[in-house]
Amino acid sequence: MTRNILVIGAGKSTAYLLDYFMEKALEEDLALTVADLDLTAVPPHLAKQERCHLQNLDIFNDAAREKAIAQAHIVVSMLPASFHHVVAQDCLRLKKHLVTASYVHPDIKAMDAAVKESGLVFMNEIGLDPGIDHMSAMKAIDTIRDQGGNMLLFESFTGGLVAPESDNNLWNYKFTWNPRNVVLAGQGGTAKFIQEGTYKYIPYHKLFRRTEFFEIEGYGRFEGYANRDSLDYREAYGLQKALTIYRGTMRRVGFSKAWNIFVQLGMTDDSFTVENSENMTYRDFVNLFLPYSPTDSVELKLRHYLKIDQDDSVWYKLLELNIFDDQRRIGLKNATPAQMLQKILEDSWTLKEDEKDMIVMYHKFGYEHNGKKKQLDSNMVVIGENRTHTAMAKTVGLPVGIATLLILNKAITTPGVQIPITKEVYGPILAELETYGVSFKEHEVPYLGYNPDTVAS
Amino acid sequence: MTRNILVIGAGKSTAYLLDYFMEKALEEDLALTVADLDLTAVPPHLAKQERCHLQNLDIFNDAAREKAIAQAHIVVSMLPASFHHVVAQDCLRLKKHLVTASYVHPDIKAMDAAVKESGLVFMNEIGLDPGIDHMSAMKAIDTIRDQGGNMLLFESFTGGLVAPESDNNLWNYKFTWNPRNVVLAGQGGTAKFIQEGTYKYIPYHKLFRRTEFFEIEGYGRFEGYANRDSLDYREAYGLQKALTIYRGTMRRVGFSKAWNIFVQLGMTDDSFTVENSENMTYRDFVNLFLPYSPTDSVELKLRHYLKIDQDDSVWYKLLELNIFDDQRRIGLKNATPAQMLQKILEDSWTLKEDEKDMIVMYHKFGYEHNGKKKQLDSNMVVIGENRTHTAMAKTVGLPVGIATLLILNKAITTPGVQIPITKEVYGPILAELETYGVSFKEHEVPYLGYNPDTVAS
Repeated sequence: MTRNILVIGAGKSTAYLLDYFMEKALEEDLALTVADLDLTAVPPHLAKQERCHLQNLDIFNDAAREKAIAQAHIVVSMLPASFHHVVAQDCLRLKKHLVTASYVHPDIKAMDAAVKESGLVFMNEIGLDPGIDHMSAMKAIDTIRDQGGNMLLFESFTGGLVAPESDNNLWNYKFTWNPRNVVLAGQGGTAKFIQEGTYKYIPYHKLFRRTEFFEIEGYGRFEGYANRDSLDYREAYGLQKALTIYRGTMRRVGFSKAWNIFVQLGMTDDSFTVENSENMTYRDFVNLFLPYSPTDSVELKLRHYLKIDQDDSVWYKLLELNIFDDQRRIGLKNATPAQMLQKILEDSWTLKEDEKDMIVMYHKFGYEHNGKKKQLDSNMVVIGENRTHTAMAKTVGLPVGIATLLILNKAITTPGVQIPITKEVYGPILAELETYGVSFKEHEVPYLGYNPDTVAS
Repeated sequence: MTRNILVIGAGKSTAYLLDYFMEKALEEDLALTVADLDLTAVPPHLAKQERCHLQNLDIFNDAAREKAIAQAHIVVSMLPASFHHVVAQDCLRLKKHLVTASYVHPDIKAMDAAVKESGLVFMNEIGLDPGIDHMSAMKAIDTIRDQGGNMLLFESFTGGLVAPESDNNLWNYKFTWNPRNVVLAGQGGTAKFIQEGTYKYIPYHKLFRRTEFFEIEGYGRFEGYANRDSLDYREAYGLQKALTIYRGTMRRVGFSKAWNIFVQLGMTDDSFTVENSENMTYRDFVNLFLPYSPTDSVELKLRHYLKIDQDDSVWYKLLELNIFDDQRRIGLKNATPAQMLQKILEDSWTLKEDEKDMIVMYHKFGYEHNGKKKQLDSNMVVIGENRTHTAMAKTVGLPVGIATLLILNKAITTPGVQIPITKEVYGPILAELETYGVSFKEHEVPYLGYNPDTVAS
């Protein structure tokens, strides 16, 4: 019997997901419906395929949405996270499985009992981060535990970066995902984690000065800054007794020190709009955050304010972005500082058509086994093909696609609202991801405890 | 006919206010009712006076509150700002004038038309800051305008400080008002002002590094950091065309640089609670905000993190507060960092019974007159008597008391929800304040424009 898969939301991150379904369509007898208000991001070759049907759908049109969901055997929601619960309600009522790559929305969490009762699987957080991070971490943690080890330390970093062959600016960074999220990264609350049994707190304005460093064989050095939510999965991962839990975001070394300049100035603020933002030059924008002077230049005021030495290489990173340009205009009405900064960054950090992104994930597992302390390091590097077939789209889309098929094929059957942290789920998904080149390298290393590079920082 | 004044709220800031009413009681034929749930802060000598009646009142008991208000000719609300609107609704219905020292609550603002229709005066912001700042500024601005001058610049700073004779710590600061407000000062939004026609924004984490400096004759040097709301009164003061508007808070020079250490660490954060805060030592508290190290001291980690030189005097300010003490415990359950910091500061910064506070207010008016740029500086210094009869209680309480009597005596008659910015209001109040030693010294000085001390900063 043909199984109908309904994918709601056809943004640019769905390239690999849709390809995966079409690749499996014949052998698995699948019929794919891709539904969105805007279908322009769907690659033309898909629209021509017999087993793929494009449907114009306004998800706030209840009748149309329900009709589409009623015809499906399983629903994949690639909508923005705040819209999933609308789809989830229909799925529950119409008894359809659901797959999303987003964090579990409280409204969906609340459906857990009813979802279980209906024998449905609502799989969430099955993209990259969250997604592959959960699965790869739990695989290692379960293995350590199965061998009788006790977890002492867990650190995990993920970065959406630019591939070495396309890495040609001083920041070693380009936007490979939603630029707005990059500009706002780290806001919304104090970062909290635990190091050697002690809670630690980092306020936003210090976040980019409290980085950690590590090397990935073959790819050089990286840095990481703390996520706000390091402790969110402490119970889910069974790490209540671990002394160190730290989750972070990866950048190339030096990014955070330079980004901190924007944070210090107040340029990442999204809480108010700037008068006359549209007509301001990039230089005017910088000057908003500096004291008035009848004589001194914006450059010298900035250097003095943030104590940037004459020979500090961070300065060239700023110059590369043309932030002192007195001709280029922001061109955005009633914009917040964060929106204005994003505009300036997009000039320099937009991926070109043939440029490649890179996903890097790095885990560190410290544990005690037979009285000895041990450490396992694990990393994954995925390079994209081009601006459409990005490593980001691949590492988000493939786990979603694989999970969808596993649920359809009753390889994943435990019902409920869940995230991929059980062997039933991560086992087959990680195995299949490997066949697509999405795999982890593991190294046993001497136990170092908390990152010794920063011990004295 | 005896006029009944009802004062709702009998906190420790009401000492001068109640004394003022009793001083005038006989000649003005006043009967005073002081109503609060807790009347312990009312000085014993007042309770014995014939024309003073103490009443136990729960302001959320509608019947009791309405009865008390119905018997009054005018109501003074000294409650916390968020409770005034409850009293205001009764005053409107029962046709009673109302006086408060607080910022105009939006719910009260919305009553304006009805208040005007009833011919009532709802006078707000008639304390020190807001209050004396409005009145003294508007007196100078009106005088400049009456003489044909055009306002170019307005800067205004107020500080609740410690008197020189009680100034015996390295911070030159003690708590003379609500300590919580001091710890949270500057939070809640980016400071915004205008300098020489350009908008300027300072994020919280830079607020205490963007200070201005000035000298008050006979009292030495002070510094000021920007208030969030410099532009709030631009229209009320008629300063739409002024090129510079800056309102700030005063401290002794050096306070802000040291306070910035707490801000940078994250110790003023009030948005989350700390696990096990009760049993933490002061040293544990500091270490929450520093990286883990198996070997380095909290002291060295802090010095390195914030780049505090060995010979920086700011260090002795920290030592004076015993923040590295590993014996003293916070003793507050589920406390936020801000609450924990407040506890530590209260050990050192609490005014002793015989110690005196000091209020300093400083205005700078720049204007153009007959083609020439001129500047008028104006300052007020008030020294308290002791911990009860503070300069703060005097400068808040007297304007409230004076305004109350002027309204009763129909010297202030313009109806509506208002703040003291018209000559009808500020004229007689400032004149009477002078008889209590609350007065301004004015100096014509050469026009300097925006503070030249910080031109290059």
